[in-house]
Amino acid sequence: MTPENPSFHAHHSPIGALASFTCGAHGAKGGMGIALPRAYQGEISIGYMDAADTLHLLPLFEGSDSSESERYVEGAEGTRGKLSVIHDVSREYLWATDRILSQNVELEIATPFFPIPDPENATPTDLAFASCPVVHAAVTFKNDTDAPIRGIFALGIDQRWSPLSEQTGGALVGATSQDQIGFATQTPGASCFMDFDPISAMNRKHSTPEFLLGPTAGLEIEIAPGEERTLEITLGFYHQGPATYNRSTSYYYTRHFTSLSQVLEYGLENRFHYLEQASERDLELASAKLNVEQKFLIAHATRSYYGSSQWLWDGSKSVWVVNEGEYLMMNTFDLTVDMLFFEMRFNPWTVRNVLEQFTQDYSFYDQVFDPQDPDTLHPGGLSFCHDMGVMNHWSPAGRSSYEVGGLDRACFSHMTCEQLTNWVLCAGIYLAQTEDADFLRRHQQTFLECLRSLQNRDHYDPAKRDGIMSLESSRTEGGGEITTYDSLDHSLGQSRRNIYLGGKMWASYLILENLFTQTNREELATETRAAAELAANTLAAGFDPELGYIPAVLEGDNTSAIIPAIEALVYPYLIGLENALCEDGPYGSYITALRKHFHHVMDTGLCLYPDGGWKLSSSADNSWMSKINLCQYVARAVLGIDFGEDQYKADQAHARWEREGSKLSACSDQFRSGVAHGSLYYPRIVTNILWLSE
Amino acid sequence: MTPENPSFHAHHSPIGALASFTCGAHGAKGGMGIALPRAYQGEISIGYMDAADTLHLLPLFEGSDSSESERYVEGAEGTRGKLSVIHDVSREYLWATDRILSQNVELEIATPFFPIPDPENATPTDLAFASCPVVHAAVTFKNDTDAPIRGIFALGIDQRWSPLSEQTGGALVGATSQDQIGFATQTPGASCFMDFDPISAMNRKHSTPEFLLGPTAGLEIEIAPGEERTLEITLGFYHQGPATYNRSTSYYYTRHFTSLSQVLEYGLENRFHYLEQASERDLELASAKLNVEQKFLIAHATRSYYGSSQWLWDGSKSVWVVNEGEYLMMNTFDLTVDMLFFEMRFNPWTVRNVLEQFTQDYSFYDQVFDPQDPDTLHPGGLSFCHDMGVMNHWSPAGRSSYEVGGLDRACFSHMTCEQLTNWVLCAGIYLAQTEDADFLRRHQQTFLECLRSLQNRDHYDPAKRDGIMSLESSRTEGGGEITTYDSLDHSLGQSRRNIYLGGKMWASYLILENLFTQTNREELATETRAAAELAANTLAAGFDPELGYIPAVLEGDNTSAIIPAIEALVYPYLIGLENALCEDGPYGSYITALRKHFHHVMDTGLCLYPDGGWKLSSSADNSWMSKINLCQYVARAVLGIDFGEDQYKADQAHARWEREGSKLSACSDQFRSGVAHGSLYYPRIVTNILWLSE
Repeated sequence: MTPENPSFHAHHSPIGALASFTCGAHGAKGGMGIALPRAYQGEISIGYMDAADTLHLLPLFEGSDSSESERYVEGAEGTRGKLSVIHDVSREYLWATDRILSQNVELEIATPFFPIPDPENATPTDLAFASCPVVHAAVTFKNDTDAPIRGIFALGIDQRWSPLSEQTGGALVGATSQDQIGFATQTPGASCFMDFDPISAMNRKHSTPEFLLGPTAGLEIEIAPGEERTLEITLGFYHQGPATYNRSTSYYYTRHFTSLSQVLEYGLENRFHYLEQASERDLELASAKLNVEQKFLIAHATRSYYGSSQWLWDGSKSVWVVNEGEYLMMNTFDLTVDMLFFEMRFNPWTVRNVLEQFTQDYSFYDQVFDPQDPDTLHPGGLSFCHDMGVMNHWSPAGRSSYEVGGLDRACFSHMTCEQLTNWVLCAGIYLAQTEDADFLRRHQQTFLECLRSLQNRDHYDPAKRDGIMSLESSRTEGGGEITTYDSLDHSLGQSRRNIYLGGKMWASYLILENLFTQTNREELATETRAAAELAANTLAAGFDPELGYIPAVLEGDNTSAIIPAIEALVYPYLIGLENALCEDGPYGSYITALRKHFHHVMDTGLCLYPDGGWKLSSSADNSWMSKINLCQYVARAVLGIDFGEDQYKADQAHARWEREGSKLSACSDQFRSGVAHGSLYYPRIVTNILWLSE
Repeated sequence: MTPENPSFHAHHSPIGALASFTCGAHGAKGGMGIALPRAYQGEISIGYMDAADTLHLLPLFEGSDSSESERYVEGAEGTRGKLSVIHDVSREYLWATDRILSQNVELEIATPFFPIPDPENATPTDLAFASCPVVHAAVTFKNDTDAPIRGIFALGIDQRWSPLSEQTGGALVGATSQDQIGFATQTPGASCFMDFDPISAMNRKHSTPEFLLGPTAGLEIEIAPGEERTLEITLGFYHQGPATYNRSTSYYYTRHFTSLSQVLEYGLENRFHYLEQASERDLELASAKLNVEQKFLIAHATRSYYGSSQWLWDGSKSVWVVNEGEYLMMNTFDLTVDMLFFEMRFNPWTVRNVLEQFTQDYSFYDQVFDPQDPDTLHPGGLSFCHDMGVMNHWSPAGRSSYEVGGLDRACFSHMTCEQLTNWVLCAGIYLAQTEDADFLRRHQQTFLECLRSLQNRDHYDPAKRDGIMSLESSRTEGGGEITTYDSLDHSLGQSRRNIYLGGKMWASYLILENLFTQTNREELATETRAAAELAANTLAAGFDPELGYIPAVLEGDNTSAIIPAIEALVYPYLIGLENALCEDGPYGSYITALRKHFHHVMDTGLCLYPDGGWKLSSSADNSWMSKINLCQYVARAVLGIDFGEDQYKADQAHARWEREGSKLSACSDQFRSGVAHGSLYYPRIVTNILWLSE
């Protein structure tokens, strides 16, 4: 759990606060922020002033990657001071604890996470603990000199600060800005300072420690010769009042905490319990039978997930939102279906919550058309929006922020068919793992409507159906739908006749069949099974022996080879539909075709990068970490493939993509030849939580 | 009122909302923002798409100063469109109306202002009208082609938008972002669009006018061949909940309006009345007996004043704050005293309000010391903080954000003596012009304490007093006080023995004497008159016949020549103490010395720049527009000096400093050789309101 390269940004976030203390990359800006599309662009100054007045700082600020080890620098207003950047830094990157280590200064940031209790039946005590928007830092200073040194932790921002001791009658030492971010300590001997920058503060010519005009605030503590001291710091976030627009909601934590100072006080009081939770998670991941790069990827993905999570309250109930990383779209459904596995492990109620937000506010009924005859509309059916809004602006009901009409299989077109499968797949997994009878009862009709809608997107003439999507939504206004892979070529971008989406339709039918059987709707179950068989047969028949695989799109002369052909196997697998996955089961020919497909695209290197990383599509240099991690799981767990030494090679490549190719963006999703170029600072990569169950 | 160079930024602000639609500079970013230290960095797109699909835009966006007149540009996501920047632009810059004019597109922005009724006794109707945070725009499109054109008004920001029609049941067309900024129209035929940028919007490949993912929102209207149409737009601002930190207050307008959409609706409904107010102001300034550059400077200063104004509500009363331009310090007292004249003309209650905030929360008692013997403290007395906080963070009571201890006559030291004079001078002018007997009664004791405090800063031994400051505040902790001219050399920066501050002490004594006389405290009046005489005599005696003027600091071998020696004459003049200003009156020798001083420093060019602009200090290239404008008034109105042709030359130079030297910062205060280098985007320059009374 000691990454070979310690210089990369990571989210450090409370649960559900859409907040982050992002830091870790050397020579880069970072800091605390709420609802940001990237790391806050501030200065983080952590280190100590030695007796010779040299300020030694961890390299967590812009310019700290300079090769000069010791130099005079100019503070604001002409202050001058000697600065030495600590270059010999390592990192211990556990699931809930991130440690940035050097000889004399160690920064530890704990971001405990745990099942969020279902707010409908949990106690206020538990809900306060889960929602409190705090992150737990500790800086340990080791004085191996024979004179006292002064340890500091400071943040430089665009705004200004208020002293916390004023707000808490001296109970807390620290500072807050705009009542939105702040830090506090109760470590004896610690004091607070404010100034233009750390150089000005530590070399100040004036006598006012809290110089309120300065954008930098920090904590300071003296360490006697030969001693070691730890400054225990709680970082807190708070957003009062409406958190979202076009529909007013507030952060859930505002139900339990009325101010930032209260949050900070609670965080310090409950520090021990929070750190206990962090340790449990750390141990859990550390003891998993995974290689170190897999553990790195899980830890990295988890942090970015929580950084995008937003637990809101609408006045009568909780509203769970995961924001789409740098894009900040709200509850993007094709991310929800990938983050499903993570949420099911920790808090299944959030899955139910999002599904019911979709049925209630972001569902619709459309019609469909044959692309050969776009003017003739046929019955479509129920489906769901791509998302619910962007940057805290809820979209009007029934509309996403992302989708527009009139585009033919291009970015920003509609994803109607895929989102339909996403609702079914999420609901299926949710029901299989919770047995929530109420949910099943409430959505009996929804499941039936989903079936009809799926069938209508196949073909309006039942005789012409072959199980996969062929017709386009009227919402495209004569255009063509896309899949979640919006920025790829048609190998994965186009929806109709796509084998990736075809697989998700097949899995949706399996889930629906299973539910209809459970609820004794035998006729429907039979009809649905037939649809699944059609899909499987079509996809299996798509196998091209000459190519050695199933081409991505079963129309025209497409010859792209794609890994996500196998993706949808995860759903029947997790539900326990073992029979459906047997090569001698009802869908045997499909399973066999997929196995051959997968072996071919991997063994020939068609879908590999030179570094061993996975290339989702042979025809596009754009590979998505969330989907790679998901398909790795499917290949191993469902198809039983042992990658041998290639396993570690791939994991290491992927970990390097994140650490080096996405250095400033924490965990990212889209990579071109190992360099993140979109979907930065992204929550979706938690598909790799599945690895823990292998 | 047609500036020779139309390319400069200007605030366009409601009253008291700390908000601005800043625009006007060509090729620059601009836009709507709340509580910003500079122009919002967005894109403003105003113009029309002709029948040949060329988008013609006013040059109000970054890159529009390119010399290419017509070019293809790339929109987001690969959209391409033809763009033509309208370069032939002029400007009509009235007091409350700013018009940016071209052949086919005219933008008019009205920012009406008028006396804000005293909230303690005004009607809710009047208070709603005065506080409503709106700005009134109109874009007129003239179609001189024989095909329809499409006119647009659009703003590109960092956030996203919600359609206004959704929020108002179709009553308004427009968009809002974060419930904080928005624009609306009811002009028939206008529609709203959103997209990545105007090029993408006007050349869109999709069919969804409101593409919610885009950061640009706008209004669009079709203009038939040969026709002219005006799009009437209300721009609105809104900040819900706490507006300030460390002490919670809300914007006053939240008492009358509960949402941004309500603000926009009210703005459109009352458009006629607002425009009437704007016209009245326009006419008032236009008909004044001032040259065009003077009128420009007044109009420019007024806009920046309102952009920094902030009318708050603390739960029981109004709290008036003027923020310090780019620094955003709250109610900086040495600005208050300069903006006094403007506020007395329009809303004297704001002066009272700020004075009483100072006495209640930001006053203190200190001790003083002789710089020769800094360890021996003597009685000091009452004084006031430099400011009340910064960037909406109130400072703890009794502390400013700016002042720190331990500095000897350097920036950020204390301004204790000057702030003491500022309270007396503001209160004196307020009382003289309002005859507010309640205020006088409430502050009887304050005036007495001010007298004692002034005297103690002169000398602890009454026998050694000479009327001007010689002792330093204990708050400097052994350092030395500064004046408002913090960034100048000692000619104006140092407080003790300074003839600028000495003048303000003299004027303070005059005011106190006058008040004591009015309240029948004859003994005090006599004592105070004696102090004024001491001051006048000391200052007059400072005249150095060899130099030809009074050197700025009456200690050491200072020989700086400063214009603000005469500044304090404004106070007795405005109060009507004519006798005090006569050369044969009780302070005749002082007045005579000042007249000779002023003639010398101007006639010899010691205090002039080569362009004819005024140089406040002969020893510093740092001249402040607010103080120049104030001293121009004093020279003409009090000393009766006729500058002849030099008058216009100076005014033109100063106007050019603002237009060209402060192009992107609206009205600024500090100039080095005509280039703004500090105190940008600043409210203080409204000292020039005095010119209207000449």
